[in-house]
Amino acid sequence: MLRTVGIIGGGQLARMMIVPALELGFEVKVLAEAEKSPAKLAATVGDHTDLQTVREFANTVDVITFDHEHVPLQILEALIADGVNVQPSPKALLFAQNKLAMRKRLAELNVPMPDWAEVSAAEDIDAFLASHGGVAVLKTATGGYDGKGVRIVRSGVDATDWLAEGKALLIEEKVNFVRELAQLSARNSSGQWLAWPVVQTIQREGVCSEVHSPADHADSESAAKIAEAIATGLGVTGVLAVELFETAGGKLLVNELAMRPHNSGHFSIEGSVTSQFEQHLRAVLDLPLGSTEGTSAYAVMLNLLGPETSNTFAENFEKAWVLESNSHIHLYGKEYRAGRKMGHITALSSDSLADARAQALATYNALLA
Amino acid sequence: MLRTVGIIGGGQLARMMIVPALELGFEVKVLAEAEKSPAKLAATVGDHTDLQTVREFANTVDVITFDHEHVPLQILEALIADGVNVQPSPKALLFAQNKLAMRKRLAELNVPMPDWAEVSAAEDIDAFLASHGGVAVLKTATGGYDGKGVRIVRSGVDATDWLAEGKALLIEEKVNFVRELAQLSARNSSGQWLAWPVVQTIQREGVCSEVHSPADHADSESAAKIAEAIATGLGVTGVLAVELFETAGGKLLVNELAMRPHNSGHFSIEGSVTSQFEQHLRAVLDLPLGSTEGTSAYAVMLNLLGPETSNTFAENFEKAWVLESNSHIHLYGKEYRAGRKMGHITALSSDSLADARAQALATYNALLA
Repeated sequence: MLRTVGIIGGGQLARMMIVPALELGFEVKVLAEAEKSPAKLAATVGDHTDLQTVREFANTVDVITFDHEHVPLQILEALIADGVNVQPSPKALLFAQNKLAMRKRLAELNVPMPDWAEVSAAEDIDAFLASHGGVAVLKTATGGYDGKGVRIVRSGVDATDWLAEGKALLIEEKVNFVRELAQLSARNSSGQWLAWPVVQTIQREGVCSEVHSPADHADSESAAKIAEAIATGLGVTGVLAVELFETAGGKLLVNELAMRPHNSGHFSIEGSVTSQFEQHLRAVLDLPLGSTEGTSAYAVMLNLLGPETSNTFAENFEKAWVLESNSHIHLYGKEYRAGRKMGHITALSSDSLADARAQALATYNALLA
Repeated sequence: MLRTVGIIGGGQLARMMIVPALELGFEVKVLAEAEKSPAKLAATVGDHTDLQTVREFANTVDVITFDHEHVPLQILEALIADGVNVQPSPKALLFAQNKLAMRKRLAELNVPMPDWAEVSAAEDIDAFLASHGGVAVLKTATGGYDGKGVRIVRSGVDATDWLAEGKALLIEEKVNFVRELAQLSARNSSGQWLAWPVVQTIQREGVCSEVHSPADHADSESAAKIAEAIATGLGVTGVLAVELFETAGGKLLVNELAMRPHNSGHFSIEGSVTSQFEQHLRAVLDLPLGSTEGTSAYAVMLNLLGPETSNTFAENFEKAWVLESNSHIHLYGKEYRAGRKMGHITALSSDSLADARAQALATYNALLA
């Protein structure tokens, strides 16, 4: 009954899933792209776009799950045909890999979204722009990540390259949001579903920079309802991250989805009774989910993004750790690159988000100094 | 500056040290006795009593530390001569390996202890018994662990075998204690020292069964003072566990020492801002120690000892996890053996020790059912 979880992708999410596997007593194996991956401790190196490689890896584990969305669906369908247990299933993953499929399905589920349209010619774009204030967001249906595959357009001409490449595209209303939220939840294959508190996410240059849990004065009931509708409607297994826009009127609109542990849930490692990484393992093994109750009233997470000059953030542990702070530093064992997600800091507070943020920021500044 | 910690011994303590290494971004390597060790994820297999093996292992890491006390001191002295960073040093470890050396040194430090004497003949034992009520505890100076190398004696005849084997022995007053406590603390090589709250430990058949944190109405000030005197006086680096007897008069007497993370500190994984495993890594790398503040007012830890009939405790995750409980289950990935430490459960409560214990016990019963 000691089960083995196989994770495709050797990034920091896989690394952080190794932790609850060690704690709970599961075996864990990782199929990583490169020798020096953050999850190398449990990794074998192999190409996740090669069926034979993935098939051999799958033969050594009880369930396959993911660190990223980049495994071709055909490969996963072939595994399913082999009888492999893939969680989430390719049927659900389609909606995390393909934004066009996602928008179509969410429309069927009556989930609130920005206005959107499928476009395949410059005229389609111009028509959408004409009815949406002359500016909109153009996205490639697949391959987008951390700001890639997304651009602001003001004319069909702005899409000439993508149209020429024959990319499947969709255009979305540029929402005049007041802030961004994320609703994390998890669902196991038996259908049990549980949500964490809705959080506020702060992006800088398209990359998540901060997460505040819980989001101050958010419509948590609507956020949870949306997440549950999506988790159930799409048949998601594991952690589901729903990124949301909050409009000036307090309305919530679905921006993006991810079906794996997500940057907006890192706070849960210390901030929740059950972390998103433990919950993901429970869910994909179809075990009962754990409590998503907070261990503290407030949590703030700051990403450690590679600064302009070389710094792995480990140089200054001494300075960061002499602070009287309850901050927790996480480093992913990555080599330095400017802008790279190298780690994160989480600070908890029973007093306020401001207090948690001040603690995290002091640690951040000490690590950089 | 990404440092590599080398751990000798592949047991559950090494396994639980891998977790903070992953979180903090340290590399970790383990020298394990066997292929299927709890720490196998980071392990190479080798004999820790073979100098060449240990030397080769030491060459791949920045600091050597331990999962157990069984590395011969001569091997560690040879490493020191090579310039290897060994923490705690063999000078300190001597006192964890040899109970006679420990008693002599603690006497110099005026640390309160049971009456004791070095004995090398049946007459020595009889003389000690005559002045201590006719019953005492005889111990081999080295090689004792979890009740081994310890016996109750009522006559010098009871020691015939150990005396014939020429074992170095000490005899100790059989303390009429009301309960057993443990004081965990950590010290880095720069001399920073920090203690966790003193805990109560409950043994069954010589093996730790439960830990209650903090110990109800204990003389925490005296316990901390004793631990600090020992940590400083013995030059300990890393986690130091001081096992204590509490007498009817409330006096604390030192029973045993360990210089590594210890069963009495497992509660700190969820129960403290900084776990004993993270603290041990910080201390042996001579980094600042982290807060030992509680994350909750009360914590109870129950050991999962292999029951009479085969059970890895993983068979019943489903039952244990449907309970409304904040219990955390830890399994060490060990094969079943009756009486073996297979894992542990920690439950936290803001209300009372009784509440934490009830939660942990409900989970324990569900896992066994």
